[in-house]
Amino acid sequence: MKIDLLITNCVLLPVPGAETLIDPGFVAACGSHILQSGPMSECPTVEFGTVLDGQGQLAMPGLVNGHCHAPMTLFRGLADDLDLTTWLHGHIFPAEARTVCPEMVYWCSKLAAAEMLLSGTTTVADGYFLEDEVARACAETGLRCVAAQAVIDFPAPGAEDPRKNIEVAERFLARWQGRHPLISPAVFAHSPYACGNDTLLRAKALARRRNVPFFIHAAETRDEAGMIAEPLAPTPIGHLAHLGLLDRDTVCVHCVWADEQDLDLLAQSGAGVVTCPQSNAKLASGRAPLAAMLQRNLRVGLGADGAASNNSLDLFREMDFVAKAHKVQPNNAVAVPAARALQLATSGGAEVIGLSAGHGTLTAGSVADLILIDLAQPHLQPLHRSRLPVYSGCAADVRTVVVNGRVVIHNRRLLTIDLQETCAQVRRLAGQ
Amino acid sequence: MKIDLLITNCVLLPVPGAETLIDPGFVAACGSHILQSGPMSECPTVEFGTVLDGQGQLAMPGLVNGHCHAPMTLFRGLADDLDLTTWLHGHIFPAEARTVCPEMVYWCSKLAAAEMLLSGTTTVADGYFLEDEVARACAETGLRCVAAQAVIDFPAPGAEDPRKNIEVAERFLARWQGRHPLISPAVFAHSPYACGNDTLLRAKALARRRNVPFFIHAAETRDEAGMIAEPLAPTPIGHLAHLGLLDRDTVCVHCVWADEQDLDLLAQSGAGVVTCPQSNAKLASGRAPLAAMLQRNLRVGLGADGAASNNSLDLFREMDFVAKAHKVQPNNAVAVPAARALQLATSGGAEVIGLSAGHGTLTAGSVADLILIDLAQPHLQPLHRSRLPVYSGCAADVRTVVVNGRVVIHNRRLLTIDLQETCAQVRRLAGQ
Repeated sequence: MKIDLLITNCVLLPVPGAETLIDPGFVAACGSHILQSGPMSECPTVEFGTVLDGQGQLAMPGLVNGHCHAPMTLFRGLADDLDLTTWLHGHIFPAEARTVCPEMVYWCSKLAAAEMLLSGTTTVADGYFLEDEVARACAETGLRCVAAQAVIDFPAPGAEDPRKNIEVAERFLARWQGRHPLISPAVFAHSPYACGNDTLLRAKALARRRNVPFFIHAAETRDEAGMIAEPLAPTPIGHLAHLGLLDRDTVCVHCVWADEQDLDLLAQSGAGVVTCPQSNAKLASGRAPLAAMLQRNLRVGLGADGAASNNSLDLFREMDFVAKAHKVQPNNAVAVPAARALQLATSGGAEVIGLSAGHGTLTAGSVADLILIDLAQPHLQPLHRSRLPVYSGCAADVRTVVVNGRVVIHNRRLLTIDLQETCAQVRRLAGQ
Repeated sequence: MKIDLLITNCVLLPVPGAETLIDPGFVAACGSHILQSGPMSECPTVEFGTVLDGQGQLAMPGLVNGHCHAPMTLFRGLADDLDLTTWLHGHIFPAEARTVCPEMVYWCSKLAAAEMLLSGTTTVADGYFLEDEVARACAETGLRCVAAQAVIDFPAPGAEDPRKNIEVAERFLARWQGRHPLISPAVFAHSPYACGNDTLLRAKALARRRNVPFFIHAAETRDEAGMIAEPLAPTPIGHLAHLGLLDRDTVCVHCVWADEQDLDLLAQSGAGVVTCPQSNAKLASGRAPLAAMLQRNLRVGLGADGAASNNSLDLFREMDFVAKAHKVQPNNAVAVPAARALQLATSGGAEVIGLSAGHGTLTAGSVADLILIDLAQPHLQPLHRSRLPVYSGCAADVRTVVVNGRVVIHNRRLLTIDLQETCAQVRRLAGQ
């Protein structure tokens, strides 16, 4: 038995949501996958490659950012304290028109990938224009990425003629499908208000033909229903259902304004949801009915959205926020417990965005995507149940990050790219 | 002109709320106070003591935690996802009965003080039993503390006979008033439901006699009005007003269930409010009407509350949360803008808890309590308005902390106490 990576003597959280900790525990990986994990007493004594001492550290699955627009790091803090419509039309669309090009997408995605890895995220589901450059940046940085090429009915970077947007997406899928262990291509239809019915149908047909996930923003703002050109139902999610777009390979992002019937449609179809609570709050869009979603056993993941609307890609903050914000109005202390927040940000999100079974856990056979958290930090003392790092853990507690069996961060140092150069390139692109 | 501490070439945020940044700027301190700050072109060239190069760093006032129970770090993560009543009576009160003693208060406060300094807080308003030990721990660690001795009508540590609770508080004030540059003593009457009317009147009379701030939990939960033994008005704040307890030296903490009339009473009396949005959310108590408070120009500060209900003492998280959580239900992107959140957590809070004018700013004559934030962090790139570190900054970005003119943290190393020993003592007290 060959082991490439062995983590010993850690506090092990193998399955988020189960709250069972193994202390002391171990994780052994061979190649890209986990071979075995469990109590130290069962640790195999065989030939191995790298051994990391996990003493005083929590080993847990890497976090899964269920929705992001990685290149939008360029616009972080550009326009704050504005509602979505003003923010988007008054600031972001004009800034994108000025700046989006392959070089911008590449460098700003590289910064995003670095930021995500440094805050314990090992997988992102991204959607943007020129998504090739996002995929390339993530592959180089060592971040797993479900990279979804955007489809929109306006002239866009890389698809200046919107009549060719499906063709552009199809070529993207062909370039990336099965080509890189970290990259899974997908389709991202922007929204029911920025894509006509024909485009939505053709985009979903492409995703079905290629057997890839289909992402779409839906029901983000109260006004969205009124912005759909040829509505087939009173709500955006009803509209998508009427078009036959909801199935287990469709991911509806946001769903802030999903009503009871919409939740039924999502439940019946098996469509996934990604909630982005901080972005929805900051853009004053509202708060998704997450407690009701969880009661209906919808498939739900957690997303940071872009850095322009959050303004951070830190899923530790997102977990903390989602668990706390949903406990009020109405007041219910168990609406989203800590363990559930952790599950949304790991195995829950992984399942929604189409990753293989076991992803987001540290059990035999799952991919070796994991993080080590320094439990000696003063803000993590003492160690009661707070070893679930939802209410007190933070990004900077992440010491080591492993993606696909490869150590990409060790002692908080990113080993894969030149981070200083990346930051400098982004500042240059921002005119600084 | 003698300068003891000079910070050069920083990005300077002298007055939170004003959003004006001076780049490059300087701050010069003499003894415990700021002598001068401004653009580098005006930097004095005189004899000095310590010079810190602020290149690539944001110099801003240290954060002011307006409400805390420092010793409760012992209970961090002990009981999560519970409403306040179950949490308090089922878990916290029993745990306190087992564990609270001078040694526990001392070590757990020292941990809290370290955690606060490491996350950029330079002043805390604390309230607990055996508050001498909190004051001692903060003084040793180098954290400024408005230390309020708790008064409650039950047998409590240090005041086993509740008939002597005012006497205990009076002796506490006598011991600390004017004795230590970092410590300002005060009175903390627990709440209108845990203190009878006579106790409330006597506690406030003591605070008036000694000219110190008077803190009280008020209107934290919906049920609180019904828990007051001899109510003089329909609401807790009405009750306090009827007793004549509201004035500019009274600080009402929480005010989640303050109604319109209560807000009028607070405005008319000039009483201060400290809001603890994360604690209120996590305990499913509700959300304070902060937007309405700000519209009425109430004096408001921001607090983390204890680590048992948050579970962090990190005011960066608190600023982010307060600004985002108040933008929804109703949806209003400017309910609490970033600059306002920063002001609540600095000069706003400082004024509420009774500190001298100018506290919470970096202007000539104010105390030299300041922090340096590393702007080179990837999650802070690029630098648009996000240099206000509300939506993207985090505790670990704080590199250097100065309190009362003394450098207490340099390059994230706490210089004042043995942090490892403190953590070990707290783990021992937690039975770990």
